[in-house]
Amino acid sequence: MKRFAFLFSLLLILTGGCSCAIAEQAAAAVVPIRAENAFMQIAVDEAYEGILLGHGGPFGAVVVRDGEVVGRGHNRVLADHDPTCHGEIAAIRDACAFLGTHDLSGCVLYTTGEPCPMCLYACMWANIDRVYYGCTLADNAAIGFRDERFDALAGGREAFAGYLICVDRDACLELFDLYMETEHATY
Amino acid sequence: MKRFAFLFSLLLILTGGCSCAIAEQAAAAVVPIRAENAFMQIAVDEAYEGILLGHGGPFGAVVVRDGEVVGRGHNRVLADHDPTCHGEIAAIRDACAFLGTHDLSGCVLYTTGEPCPMCLYACMWANIDRVYYGCTLADNAAIGFRDERFDALAGGREAFAGYLICVDRDACLELFDLYMETEHATY
Repeated sequence: MKRFAFLFSLLLILTGGCSCAIAEQAAAAVVPIRAENAFMQIAVDEAYEGILLGHGGPFGAVVVRDGEVVGRGHNRVLADHDPTCHGEIAAIRDACAFLGTHDLSGCVLYTTGEPCPMCLYACMWANIDRVYYGCTLADNAAIGFRDERFDALAGGREAFAGYLICVDRDACLELFDLYMETEHATY
Repeated sequence: MKRFAFLFSLLLILTGGCSCAIAEQAAAAVVPIRAENAFMQIAVDEAYEGILLGHGGPFGAVVVRDGEVVGRGHNRVLADHDPTCHGEIAAIRDACAFLGTHDLSGCVLYTTGEPCPMCLYACMWANIDRVYYGCTLADNAAIGFRDERFDALAGGREAFAGYLICVDRDACLELFDLYMETEHATY
């Protein structure tokens, strides 16, 4: 069923004459992966859209303040030729633009993959209160990304107990499986 | 003399009816701080412009490939409401847009301040070969930024010997002095 929904979405996108906006709506309309946490679901939706559109890795993120979504985004490294446009940074930029501030104190962030050191410190600079992640750094490594290697240089995560919290890993692993089944550029 | 040049630049910017483009030209035209390294001078020029325009901290950066500048930028955290828009990340984005790739292998980066952990790993993701910095993390801390505190969490710089190289610190310290003499928002 999941495979059919995915192929259906992909078909909609690949159909000739389908505009990017329509493709994005189609991608957003059919997301077969269900997370338990409602905010993580939005991060999953973002990542799913990114996979279908070939924007980059399977990473989506959402910024939440007082129970309301104030920013969201997904990895656009390939789409934007921007190695800094990871899901977390895309969502932080979106939230800051929406709120008109560089200071996201009082906000939390949900992301489908544990933040790499770049994104972890982006959250720190943005004063994000806490980060909820799905897949772990080891999961990120298993699908070809350098997060774990970089984190070994960065001294590990011991200092961040209570700041980085794992939720909905199973749903996010489904996303990673989908990504690996989909033709994609490695970077 | 330096102070006069600075005040002259500021006067040009503050003059009523002066467009942003003209102000940026004025800022670029009068940069009294001289670095020994020609590429660091461009990073200094960028930072100087950012200080005069109140865009953010005194951090400019330039990306160089085969002796040619392929990207440049300065800290725009306040101007863009973007806590991720440090000088290094601005310059990386600029270079990637110019070259049409997310991969800056073969490039080096010059920056007026030693990269914070976010920017260090942005350089790593972008495959920057080497980073030349002016002021140190301790210098960044002395003018009110959290780089040093964050780097303590990130495990220090021992793993990056040979990757991070200090040049033109004196010229960059002049920039920092200028920043501290100028009215600015703390963030």
